[in-house]
Amino acid sequence: MDRFWQKCARCARTVRFSLNGRCACGGTLLVQYDLERIRAAVRKSALKDRPAAMWRYKELLPIARERSIVTLGEGWTPLLRMKPLERKLGIRYIGVKREEQNPTGSFKSRGFASTISLLKEHGIDYVAVPSNGNAASAMAAYAARAGMRAAAIVPRDCPGIIIEGCLRYGAATYVVDGLIHDASRIIEEGAAEQGWFHAGTLKEPGRVEGKKTMGLELAEQLDWKLPDVIIYPTGGGSGMIGMWKAFQELLELKWIGGKLPRMVSVQEAGCQPLADAMRTGAFVPPAAEEVTSKPTGLRVPNPPDGELVVHIIKQSQGTAIGVTTEQIDEAQKQMGRLGISSSPEGAATLAGLVQLREAGWIRPGESVVLFNTSHADKYVSWTPSAAVPVVRSYSELRQHQQQTGGS
Amino acid sequence: MDRFWQKCARCARTVRFSLNGRCACGGTLLVQYDLERIRAAVRKSALKDRPAAMWRYKELLPIARERSIVTLGEGWTPLLRMKPLERKLGIRYIGVKREEQNPTGSFKSRGFASTISLLKEHGIDYVAVPSNGNAASAMAAYAARAGMRAAAIVPRDCPGIIIEGCLRYGAATYVVDGLIHDASRIIEEGAAEQGWFHAGTLKEPGRVEGKKTMGLELAEQLDWKLPDVIIYPTGGGSGMIGMWKAFQELLELKWIGGKLPRMVSVQEAGCQPLADAMRTGAFVPPAAEEVTSKPTGLRVPNPPDGELVVHIIKQSQGTAIGVTTEQIDEAQKQMGRLGISSSPEGAATLAGLVQLREAGWIRPGESVVLFNTSHADKYVSWTPSAAVPVVRSYSELRQHQQQTGGS
Ligand SMILES: Cc1ncc(COP(=O)(O)O)c(C=O)c1O
Ligand SMILES: Cc1ncc(COP(=O)(O)O)c(C=O)c1O
Repeated sequence: MDRFWQKCARCARTVRFSLNGRCACGGTLLVQYDLERIRAAVRKSALKDRPAAMWRYKELLPIARERSIVTLGEGWTPLLRMKPLERKLGIRYIGVKREEQNPTGSFKSRGFASTISLLKEHGIDYVAVPSNGNAASAMAAYAARAGMRAAAIVPRDCPGIIIEGCLRYGAATYVVDGLIHDASRIIEEGAAEQGWFHAGTLKEPGRVEGKKTMGLELAEQLDWKLPDVIIYPTGGGSGMIGMWKAFQELLELKWIGGKLPRMVSVQEAGCQPLADAMRTGAFVPPAAEEVTSKPTGLRVPNPPDGELVVHIIKQSQGTAIGVTTEQIDEAQKQMGRLGISSSPEGAATLAGLVQLREAGWIRPGESVVLFNTSHADKYVSWTPSAAVPVVRSYSELRQHQQQTGGS
Repeated sequence: MDRFWQKCARCARTVRFSLNGRCACGGTLLVQYDLERIRAAVRKSALKDRPAAMWRYKELLPIARERSIVTLGEGWTPLLRMKPLERKLGIRYIGVKREEQNPTGSFKSRGFASTISLLKEHGIDYVAVPSNGNAASAMAAYAARAGMRAAAIVPRDCPGIIIEGCLRYGAATYVVDGLIHDASRIIEEGAAEQGWFHAGTLKEPGRVEGKKTMGLELAEQLDWKLPDVIIYPTGGGSGMIGMWKAFQELLELKWIGGKLPRMVSVQEAGCQPLADAMRTGAFVPPAAEEVTSKPTGLRVPNPPDGELVVHIIKQSQGTAIGVTTEQIDEAQKQMGRLGISSSPEGAATLAGLVQLREAGWIRPGESVVLFNTSHADKYVSWTPSAAVPVVRSYSELRQHQQQTGGS
């Protein structure tokens, strides 16, 4: 029997493991492991002898051979207790998971450590990603480490310092006059001609698995007792899907027991399809012209499997909320005054916490973990020095290549 | 007997522990521990059960009470093997210690975790530091975490994104029309009136001890076998002093044995007092107008105890070298193409490695560790948005305070 395979989260069909992340039915194919066997082979107490990195959970990652692993030193980020916030908000425990301490300065390191390892194992040599920024620079870094080519397509208003990161890591980098799904369309159109492997959210199974390690780590760092509430800044949704999957696996492994956390997705008010879906019961992505939020990882009007995210939120008895730009700015300042370099996305979780505490949805005796997914530094407004081509379509990208003789 | 005390590195005088880092003779007071007792109490193999943070070495840090510890999740950074570099340069082992993954994006997190903990323990409530940047933002973050006030004085050409960090963490921030020692002079002049504790390099004993953990970690991560050569980007010198002190302590603890690494200081050619002193035998700081290097942590014309750094380099049979701005830029590109976000200082170590390999000073069979001390992101040229006052002297700073009613 294979060590891992895939199962559709929608139609429950089981398939042999491949690089494809989408089921014929439109659902998401999630990786399955023989958890019985892992339970027999690994004691959770033995994990502490393993490296302080996400690869301590290697049995729960879909890389067949250890030598395929492409690592830059990701994972096992600190979980920091925030006593001044506990006092201020009147909450028993507040922890911040410092994902900005990953090698590329964001939690996206985890997803791409896993995805690029997987692609390497399967002989892929050119990877492309549509991204609001952090995913693009993480892809570029891990591809560089693996000796793989990479193409990054990001919105025109993507933070300049992140674009600079893509260039530094050597990715062919384009900015698109549009949103993240326009970038995705360009990759779809160009994939065959360019030889790109499309590593967008949920296109392949590696990213969710890598992000899953946030959930595994959180459990281990809290001595296998999960918090009452997790607040996560949500865009494409793979972080929520990954963490929830982690908790299901930990239950089956019997490494944890009892109640799972209520999962909260926070988005910015100008683009909050998850909060809208929770309220209206239906998933209706906003039209491009309705999107008014800032260029952060939260701005994903049409996530590839928003239904699955909504399902997870409901199953966990969680919620999805929108916070305003002003609330995010204020929360970012507050994080700074507490010594934390917080990206707008990370700050949004604090803004969400304040809102939910005020509404009484989070109660004083509860424990809450916020995910600070990226560094503040990357978001200071800045125009990249190198001339990065702006394109509106794949044919414009192709034209630019021909004119410059580049790739 | 006290758990720790201080001893002058120059005149060998022993004194009771205090916040003072300077001996009457002008030498540096280094913290001493009862290593016999620690050896009896702690087995090195038991360290692996401790947190993945620099506080795993708490017996070797001068904080008396555990509750004084001010932490943001610093230390236990990855040591990443660089096989493509090994092949390219024909060297058996090359590792990069990824210090940019610390909470404030640089190794300065370690020094200030230790210093701010110490100051908190001793009741200090207002700390100031002269800095080329990373130290200032680290001080600001840890002071914020401790609920302490902080003042950051940095050169006018300090990277704008680092200045932004100081502001984000809530420090009173001033830029000085001059170099780091001009900033130090301002603090000396203002200390009494403002109530500043001057936490400049080697002014107090905490910083060296915090930085020492880089050496302790390196030993543990390499299974207690140190590399043949360590290349470290040197400015004020406390990193070199700290690591060398770590190795002496590890020898006394008998946690390591045998030969210690050859310690290499790399500086930028436009300000390389250490390389000059190694060549000429005398320590003559360059005059301000002779300093032409870039505004990085390497630009310290007059380190507080350069003699001690030179002594360490000689004792270790190491060397000090200068590399050009172009070599640093080229090395930074190369690091980027290998997936690493490297600051100019971190890149300088690779430039130094190339130079020493070409000169035959490093041999093919040897093992080398480079320290990447900060993130690339922070150095993209950028002018801070907030109006940060420019001052030339303490009296100008005072004037500014009076005009704005600020502090
Ligand atoms: C910093 C940051 N936070 C959060 C997100 C959203 O994460 P997810 O795709 O897991 O929903 C992103 C995605 O781009 C991001 O860059
Ligand atoms: C990134 C960086 N590297 C190296 C140094 C020099 O370190 P040290 O003071 O230990 O010599 C500094 C100091 O400012 C720095 O900021």
